[in-house]
Amino acid sequence: MSLIVQKFGGTSVGTIERIQAVARRVLSTVQSGHQVVVVVSAMGKSTDVLVDMARQITGEPDPREMDMLLTTGEQVSIALLTMALQELGQSAVSMTGWQAGITTEEVHTKARITQIDPTPLRDALAKGKVVIVAGFQGISSDGQITTLGRGGSDTTAVALAAALQADRCEIYTDVDGVYTADPRIVSSARKLPYISYDEMLELATLGAGVLHPRAVECAKQHRVSLTVRSSFGTEEGTMIGEESNMEQGLVVSGIAHDKSVAKITVADMPAKLNAMSRLFATLAEEHINVDVIVQSAYEANTTNVSFSVSGEEVKRTLDVLLKHREELEFGYAVAEEDLAKVSIVGAGMITNPGVAARMFTCLAEAGVEIKMVSTSEIKVSCVIPLAQMEAAVRSLHTSFGLDAKEAAMVYGV
Amino acid sequence: MSLIVQKFGGTSVGTIERIQAVARRVLSTVQSGHQVVVVVSAMGKSTDVLVDMARQITGEPDPREMDMLLTTGEQVSIALLTMALQELGQSAVSMTGWQAGITTEEVHTKARITQIDPTPLRDALAKGKVVIVAGFQGISSDGQITTLGRGGSDTTAVALAAALQADRCEIYTDVDGVYTADPRIVSSARKLPYISYDEMLELATLGAGVLHPRAVECAKQHRVSLTVRSSFGTEEGTMIGEESNMEQGLVVSGIAHDKSVAKITVADMPAKLNAMSRLFATLAEEHINVDVIVQSAYEANTTNVSFSVSGEEVKRTLDVLLKHREELEFGYAVAEEDLAKVSIVGAGMITNPGVAARMFTCLAEAGVEIKMVSTSEIKVSCVIPLAQMEAAVRSLHTSFGLDAKEAAMVYGV
Repeated sequence: MSLIVQKFGGTSVGTIERIQAVARRVLSTVQSGHQVVVVVSAMGKSTDVLVDMARQITGEPDPREMDMLLTTGEQVSIALLTMALQELGQSAVSMTGWQAGITTEEVHTKARITQIDPTPLRDALAKGKVVIVAGFQGISSDGQITTLGRGGSDTTAVALAAALQADRCEIYTDVDGVYTADPRIVSSARKLPYISYDEMLELATLGAGVLHPRAVECAKQHRVSLTVRSSFGTEEGTMIGEESNMEQGLVVSGIAHDKSVAKITVADMPAKLNAMSRLFATLAEEHINVDVIVQSAYEANTTNVSFSVSGEEVKRTLDVLLKHREELEFGYAVAEEDLAKVSIVGAGMITNPGVAARMFTCLAEAGVEIKMVSTSEIKVSCVIPLAQMEAAVRSLHTSFGLDAKEAAMVYGV
Repeated sequence: MSLIVQKFGGTSVGTIERIQAVARRVLSTVQSGHQVVVVVSAMGKSTDVLVDMARQITGEPDPREMDMLLTTGEQVSIALLTMALQELGQSAVSMTGWQAGITTEEVHTKARITQIDPTPLRDALAKGKVVIVAGFQGISSDGQITTLGRGGSDTTAVALAAALQADRCEIYTDVDGVYTADPRIVSSARKLPYISYDEMLELATLGAGVLHPRAVECAKQHRVSLTVRSSFGTEEGTMIGEESNMEQGLVVSGIAHDKSVAKITVADMPAKLNAMSRLFATLAEEHINVDVIVQSAYEANTTNVSFSVSGEEVKRTLDVLLKHREELEFGYAVAEEDLAKVSIVGAGMITNPGVAARMFTCLAEAGVEIKMVSTSEIKVSCVIPLAQMEAAVRSLHTSFGLDAKEAAMVYGV
């Protein structure tokens, strides 16, 4: 008997009817002879409602209390989905993050899973139960309720699949797979039947939005066989696995974009060897995710460093910098907002020199101003003005030969 | 420095504005030099919304999953109230039932508190924090989330006050105290400044609705000084303590009523000595609360037993009886619904014979049919038709000299 972990996002459990539909889908997996663990997010916009209530009370809610507040959303979903399965005659039991043995760091709003004790899940599965686990949440070693941050339910699903050595992990979402680009921007975008962990990791990190990057990282690390598919249709989704064997003919597999990027420049830093490490160590301690980093050449005794952060983190980043200004010895810090990032991703790049140059040429011809550049073995990213993002994605999609020959598939619901 | 436990019900935290008002009230208690533990219920009708979602899925939701679902309501309240206090500059921390060390029986939807470990609360108080605890909930020794049943937040507050040896426990509600009768029925009802535990216990059990009976029992047992007052006004409420010293002149302190009563008759039981004990032991095992019990005289070899249960428990009670029919050896069971219970309560009754007779006379003169009678040292209860309840309460209030000389106070909001 194989063990399958299925994850359903907020849209998939957005109404009572949809919860009942998810229950039927889970039941049919059970009836095919599988053991099933289900991970669910909060219903539809319920998290937004909770966030809005907190915002009515305070502009800067305590992260611990936000976690206390937001984890109720998933707890509602697991109870209702369990009832729906029981109503279909299927034995089932719900578990919060702490009941499912999910331990995290002692950090709020974006904790990492440190350990999973699979005993409670194994015990329930052994009794023939479907186990419904609250995504996005865990418990820190000091007994606090924590959350994994945005898209954390994907991570919960993959981490549980790894801990239980599940045969596969299926991520059900409101899109039917991973596309060569966002079909809402590029009408000729095509669904990829297969993509490698590394490519998916770049696409996820770069804002493709289908899967949380940490989930992909966790899947790669533990060799979890991952599938992304629509919770509404029955079509095959996209498989994510060891290496891409389907799109070998293409240098670039997909174009990703991220709409919420800001560039922070820290100016007049001392030209000391440890200045950079101190700066980014400080930001890391405050859990600010830095993406692209560009250091300008030394001028006299000072240097400037620019880096990109999520658009939502601008205020907090500047606050942190200001707080540590004396010890970091910089002159001033400024932020440039309303930026975006476009990236080309493909395992084929490693053996194809000149891909970055082709990207810059394409963007230049489209009149797009490049603010920052970052590269890895399988991707090239450019930070550009947000206003030019859609045009850039379309130009790159055509330029790298990704436009579909057949009519574009319908995206999402 | 004294320690005060304050409990705020669902209406008191029904909106963001009311949560902010509660935060200000708590802060003013802190500023008067007290340590404060706050217990809150779920916001307004949020529990009803959750119950309604469950009912859309199933007619008979699994009790464990109902507890999983409903406890989210209090968890939302504690997070928001904590944020509101922090926004006022007051250090505060929220705790779920299990975080606050509240252990209950391994029963769902109506568990009793078995133990409280006050360490987490004491630690937080020692750091100068106000602790906001989710009412109504706890954790069983096998790690399940449990609830204490209706009005359980009162019990949480009193039990915490006992465990922490608090100086007093204040129950804030939408009424401003305990009245001689429900002012919505009896316009001349008066607020009682003081009432004894025993009288309050009878009033609470009998449906006065101001305080959960278990809370009063717990307060009496641990000598917790209890106050009931309005969360909206600033008037003095009703103190509940050792013995009534204010209303000594009156035989009867108040008239209570319960709108939801049903009479179950179990007919043709064997006239064996252990028949009654087996019947009520069976009902107790199934956690059915039986109130008034009347056994008719033995006739030949069989006997009939009638008892009252809450109107909501009729179906479940009949199901339980049917399930155990063979072992209990009875002929048939019938239910009579749409009944109510009216009671007169007063510590003065012990030394005043003839009070019950006076009650029966009063009801007879008002044309009220008495179905069942039950007495204790300080109360007499009559089960009567629901349609005659209001008239009965009014007649009794007048007959026992409780009508106010001055104009009646305004009841609630």
